[in-house]
Amino acid sequence: MIKPSIPKGTRDFSPVEMMRRNYIFQTIRSVFERHAYLPIETPAMENLSTLMGKYGEEGDRLLFKVLNSGDFTQGVEMTEPSPVRLATKICEKGLRYDLTVPFARFVVQHQNELVFPFKRYQMQPVWRADRPQKGRYREFYQCDADVIGTNSLLNEAELMQITSEIFQKFGIDVVIKVNNRKVLSGIAEVLGEADKITDICTAIDKLDKIGKENVCAELLERGISEAAIEKLQPFFDFGGTNAEKLHKLSEVFANSEIGTKGVEELRKMLEYADYLNINTNIEIDITLARGLNYYTGAIFEVKALNVSIGSISGGGRYDNLTGIFGLKNVSGVGISYGAERIYDVLNELELFPKSLENPVKALFINFGEKEELYALSALQVLRNAGVTAELFPDKAKIAKQMTFANSRGIPFVIMAGEDEMKDNVFTFKNMETGEQQKLPIESIVECLK
Amino acid sequence: MIKPSIPKGTRDFSPVEMMRRNYIFQTIRSVFERHAYLPIETPAMENLSTLMGKYGEEGDRLLFKVLNSGDFTQGVEMTEPSPVRLATKICEKGLRYDLTVPFARFVVQHQNELVFPFKRYQMQPVWRADRPQKGRYREFYQCDADVIGTNSLLNEAELMQITSEIFQKFGIDVVIKVNNRKVLSGIAEVLGEADKITDICTAIDKLDKIGKENVCAELLERGISEAAIEKLQPFFDFGGTNAEKLHKLSEVFANSEIGTKGVEELRKMLEYADYLNINTNIEIDITLARGLNYYTGAIFEVKALNVSIGSISGGGRYDNLTGIFGLKNVSGVGISYGAERIYDVLNELELFPKSLENPVKALFINFGEKEELYALSALQVLRNAGVTAELFPDKAKIAKQMTFANSRGIPFVIMAGEDEMKDNVFTFKNMETGEQQKLPIESIVECLK
Repeated sequence: MIKPSIPKGTRDFSPVEMMRRNYIFQTIRSVFERHAYLPIETPAMENLSTLMGKYGEEGDRLLFKVLNSGDFTQGVEMTEPSPVRLATKICEKGLRYDLTVPFARFVVQHQNELVFPFKRYQMQPVWRADRPQKGRYREFYQCDADVIGTNSLLNEAELMQITSEIFQKFGIDVVIKVNNRKVLSGIAEVLGEADKITDICTAIDKLDKIGKENVCAELLERGISEAAIEKLQPFFDFGGTNAEKLHKLSEVFANSEIGTKGVEELRKMLEYADYLNINTNIEIDITLARGLNYYTGAIFEVKALNVSIGSISGGGRYDNLTGIFGLKNVSGVGISYGAERIYDVLNELELFPKSLENPVKALFINFGEKEELYALSALQVLRNAGVTAELFPDKAKIAKQMTFANSRGIPFVIMAGEDEMKDNVFTFKNMETGEQQKLPIESIVECLK
Repeated sequence: MIKPSIPKGTRDFSPVEMMRRNYIFQTIRSVFERHAYLPIETPAMENLSTLMGKYGEEGDRLLFKVLNSGDFTQGVEMTEPSPVRLATKICEKGLRYDLTVPFARFVVQHQNELVFPFKRYQMQPVWRADRPQKGRYREFYQCDADVIGTNSLLNEAELMQITSEIFQKFGIDVVIKVNNRKVLSGIAEVLGEADKITDICTAIDKLDKIGKENVCAELLERGISEAAIEKLQPFFDFGGTNAEKLHKLSEVFANSEIGTKGVEELRKMLEYADYLNINTNIEIDITLARGLNYYTGAIFEVKALNVSIGSISGGGRYDNLTGIFGLKNVSGVGISYGAERIYDVLNELELFPKSLENPVKALFINFGEKEELYALSALQVLRNAGVTAELFPDKAKIAKQMTFANSRGIPFVIMAGEDEMKDNVFTFKNMETGEQQKLPIESIVECLK
């Protein structure tokens, strides 16, 4: 018999991992809810027609497709030479690739039941047939908050406030990098390459990773003129405070309407943020572009300090998201937190609360039939007092039961044989120090509460 | 453009539905955890080799299969005439069909990391390509608790205690029906049809649905002798208290070793249950068979009273579950709660807590730029006091904002124009009664906390 396994890029989660993951989800959820974001969920499977063409050609390739039920070959030319085309004929459904497109689909499908502006959060797994590697999985969770149907920059500020609160709760020091798509458009305009904005953004987005020289080489390759690249130089070393950056940008954009609009939006958003006393560093980064394809206003990215991990969260404003499903002129802004990245950071910085490790506070040793019933009564007392405890279910050797307590990290063991039963007490043993004393159950409750 | 939709048999969940569902999951989780069950999760996709052949022929057909990535046709004879065989050649993975088989796979795969007995719970969606109908979906959640690596009947009693606590928390009156596979074997033995136990169980399991006569007809059809069916009659009207039933059974099984063993197990389990003061009716039902194929000891089923819904939970002991993956002699017992059924019962009996309906307690009306900032400060005060509130993000018409509050069911609206700002107060309006008064934010906090 073959040793059982799971598909590559997927994971089982042990109890310790689950408790840590639940702590992450619960922390994020509590902040979302306090800010009046409401939960929704969408099905794991979407119609392929909903998903295809929304993530570019590579995205289409990385979608997991679900084979039609029954005789999927019926009426299909199975010798069709293109596997891509054949796949769409034998598969109508695919697994969710992110939470944004399903959300857009949800909003359009339920537009008559929804009241706008609609603030929703969603925390569900997504699936991508990416090549698995360290920290990248084929099944992973996204935690998204989006508000749709409002243009107010208050929403941008609130998302930064939410971000700040979440990472403060985790104890992770972060910087929130912000930019605005209109600033990027302004830059492209100033360079005289307005129509090449996608190329420019794709290239300068890599500044962090590949450095200035390589970015310039890539720009040249993408057909940006040397003169334009020359003009771009000052933007690479765009230092100073946010106020200084805004001032410099407004000068640069003296003749760019869209650039000026971007600067105004950035300024207003930061004013709101100031007003909300956001307790996290917010830094304008004019090279920040992220995906870009659908962002039209603010762009966010959150980076953890003190760890060598990339961005742990990102988002932005998109004016046309629901347009792909036929609902025009609905603007939204959202942010997404990656549970896996946050997990890795908390782990590396040893920031998981110790309380997550030992849900079970005490183990009753099972000495036999009569003793078992005596222990069972006491177990009820503990549980009713809100203490998680358990009775070893079998009359196994004491050494085995002690080993069980040890390997499970259960901090206390409770024993009762004939002597204890006579005196109506229990031997209460601290597994770390080895200390033990005889106590009535009420005193044990006090110790464990 | 086509109106977007989702695959049949799947569902979107609105905020109200989500809050209700989360209440169900959270209630079940809290009881599981208090009894020291630990959470695990397994991937949505399992290798098809893990899933195939575990749910019978129909199960294999109902598995959702995931198309291999890349060129799935490579090296495959695409003209293979059997779609079932072709499917296994172009699909290596399938969606989880239940939580039991993945759990068995998990235990075998991680046996060296686990400490037995291992008590786990798992609450995740499962997928079945069943024909969708009222109350039956293609994606639905199961909430399972299982303990593996112990033979003690204490575990059975604890699962009944957990069941009792869960439904008491929900306020749903239930009866826990119990049986034992060995009692069923005993009956088959007494009838002189020991080798036909599966047929007998399959038929009598339908007693509730199709009645005695139809069960007998089916037994005859399945090749059970008329003499045996005659002998079965007394078992159909097996009334009395649990003690009386146990007594009668022990007489019937005077010459059946396995039947006697079954009665002993039932008796012991009920003794433990008595000792745990389980506050729910437990009723021996010797026609209860459920799936049966893998149960070897206790069998449970939970039925809600006062509603016309079938079983809302079920489970039992299985001695051989991990055997299918090569790990022998590990006994387990478990129970599964169907979130959808519980949802329907809570809904029908109007048992969902009212508190789930209005997470947002108050809406600040947005009167313009200056007023917005004034409201924003007050909003922080409310949020810091733990009150969920929000500020309408746009300077929309008052009527629109009021309509928003109404359709969302937000119970209070908070307004501040120039007058209020001058006096450092807010107009606080009860949306239900229409009453309003001017109050400082501190008093509003008191009202909403």
